[in-house]
Amino acid sequence: MHTPRRTLSYALLVVTLALAAVHGAAAADDPLPSWADGTAKRAIVDFVQRVTTPGGKDFVPEPERLATFDNDGTLWAEQPIYFQIAFAFDRIKALAPQHPEWQDQEPFKSLLAGDLKGALAGGEKAIVQLVMVSHAGMTTDEFVQSVKDWIATAKHPRFNRPYTECVYQPMLELLAYLRANGFKTYIVSGGGIEFMRPWVEKVYGIPPEQVVGSSIKTKFEMRDGKPVLMRLPEVDFIDDKEGKPVGINKFIGRRPVLAFGNSDGDHQMLQWTAAGSGPRFMGLVHHTDAEREWAYDRTSHIGRLDKALDEAQAKGWTVVDMKQDWQTIFPPAAGR
Amino acid sequence: MHTPRRTLSYALLVVTLALAAVHGAAAADDPLPSWADGTAKRAIVDFVQRVTTPGGKDFVPEPERLATFDNDGTLWAEQPIYFQIAFAFDRIKALAPQHPEWQDQEPFKSLLAGDLKGALAGGEKAIVQLVMVSHAGMTTDEFVQSVKDWIATAKHPRFNRPYTECVYQPMLELLAYLRANGFKTYIVSGGGIEFMRPWVEKVYGIPPEQVVGSSIKTKFEMRDGKPVLMRLPEVDFIDDKEGKPVGINKFIGRRPVLAFGNSDGDHQMLQWTAAGSGPRFMGLVHHTDAEREWAYDRTSHIGRLDKALDEAQAKGWTVVDMKQDWQTIFPPAAGR
Repeated sequence: MHTPRRTLSYALLVVTLALAAVHGAAAADDPLPSWADGTAKRAIVDFVQRVTTPGGKDFVPEPERLATFDNDGTLWAEQPIYFQIAFAFDRIKALAPQHPEWQDQEPFKSLLAGDLKGALAGGEKAIVQLVMVSHAGMTTDEFVQSVKDWIATAKHPRFNRPYTECVYQPMLELLAYLRANGFKTYIVSGGGIEFMRPWVEKVYGIPPEQVVGSSIKTKFEMRDGKPVLMRLPEVDFIDDKEGKPVGINKFIGRRPVLAFGNSDGDHQMLQWTAAGSGPRFMGLVHHTDAEREWAYDRTSHIGRLDKALDEAQAKGWTVVDMKQDWQTIFPPAAGR
Repeated sequence: MHTPRRTLSYALLVVTLALAAVHGAAAADDPLPSWADGTAKRAIVDFVQRVTTPGGKDFVPEPERLATFDNDGTLWAEQPIYFQIAFAFDRIKALAPQHPEWQDQEPFKSLLAGDLKGALAGGEKAIVQLVMVSHAGMTTDEFVQSVKDWIATAKHPRFNRPYTECVYQPMLELLAYLRANGFKTYIVSGGGIEFMRPWVEKVYGIPPEQVVGSSIKTKFEMRDGKPVLMRLPEVDFIDDKEGKPVGINKFIGRRPVLAFGNSDGDHQMLQWTAAGSGPRFMGLVHHTDAEREWAYDRTSHIGRLDKALDEAQAKGWTVVDMKQDWQTIFPPAAGR
């Protein structure tokens, strides 16, 4: 009785191992293993093959292969609050002992008491105040250090892992795949340019000089005979909505052939990309996965996706359905 | 009588050819053949060797090998007027038929009558007016086309060759030499960023995204259903003097290890570069050759070199003496 059963088990084991080996080989060849085989993945691979085929009608010379990516909600998560706002709040808490006057002064008083709603009751003015005290009044070097310190220690409240591990594994694969095909990858984010630069190279493989973002003004000064750049509490540039094509033109000086976003803040960047001549790729990450991440679009306060979604559907831009298209959301935890 | 003389001549010829062959081989190995063998050239070669020697104490990893170059007076000439001003004047003459009102309106009236002194009598206000009508009120694409048209046809009044051939051959060699050694070369100029981008790749081998310059504001608009960026008559950023470190920090986001300028407008860029840690190279082109180019420094209206020269001498920065250090000034004329 036992022998046939054992033979069968053995045969099954062999078949299983053989299938696993085949699957493993296929995965090794697949530059986008976290992407499910669907229209989004096929559209990406098809586009890259077309623009990199020498002699093909859609061939794009390597120096013109520019790809721009939004950051919040496109390369890393943006809920329950933009991560840079979390940084600002943590920073204010850290600075509070040097500012006893904040104990009686809004929006700081509420924030320090843990009352976020109260802190934000002052609307835009309160937010600007909170951002400026945490981002201005120091040298650029000092600010970079405060970002590095935070990014190395802070953890996301839901996932209990560093914010830099709340990045999207499928997008990391896409960035690497594009670079392997001669693309120069850029971030074009509404977030602060100097908030991103200290860590994006390590996390995304994107060097600091390929980051476009919002900024405050800086001023060159001599301090003890040494030149420094002081960060002023004054907005310099808002790299969002209509500002994204402006920022692309200002910082990069040529039009991307591929752009990826996730919200109406990226709408004009996608329109600007689409309006160029030759092959174009416009992509949107649609947050549809409440279980593994979040599900939000047309009515969300953070990362609203409404008009851009309409245009994407009308024009046939690629809409990534997070739940369907991404087999994995976040990378494996590092070293734990 | 003739035979020994012929023999001697023949021997001399052989020796001459042999020496020429040796010299040719040496020149082929020399990445900076237009530079005379002097302290400036030796300082450059020594610096590049030190930062590229793996394991050496001055080794700089390739991604950090950033080099920034001023443009006017450093990479191309800047006399008798900044070339971009010549562009503005030519452009106004070309636009005049569409603006009959300019015939009675300063500073246009004087300019169109060929009276440059009268045109500039209105001081800074007049210059801003002249720059804005030639640089604003059109889309970015239209402006780029006007720059391309001008650069293809206009000629320098003294050298009677295209402005793009009034670039310095020794600096072209230096840019290529640095890139061959893993440097990323940038322009950081007081000139207009969008005035430079259309031609710098072809002329200097520097791609548009590695240009930092002064800018006017642009605005994203829909025109006949197509997105455009309109150029507004409003200054956005002046990339000169204290603005250069600000521009470097804003556009590049890390500090160069090598910087080259020629005037006090580059002083702060050199100070900013010098203040970084690790090996540094600060260079100044000193215009000392009235015969082949121009001789000017401390009292010149254009390209004044005074305080930066003092600091260069005090700190041992490299000062290139154009007359002594450059065996050639301009490249050979192209295709004529």
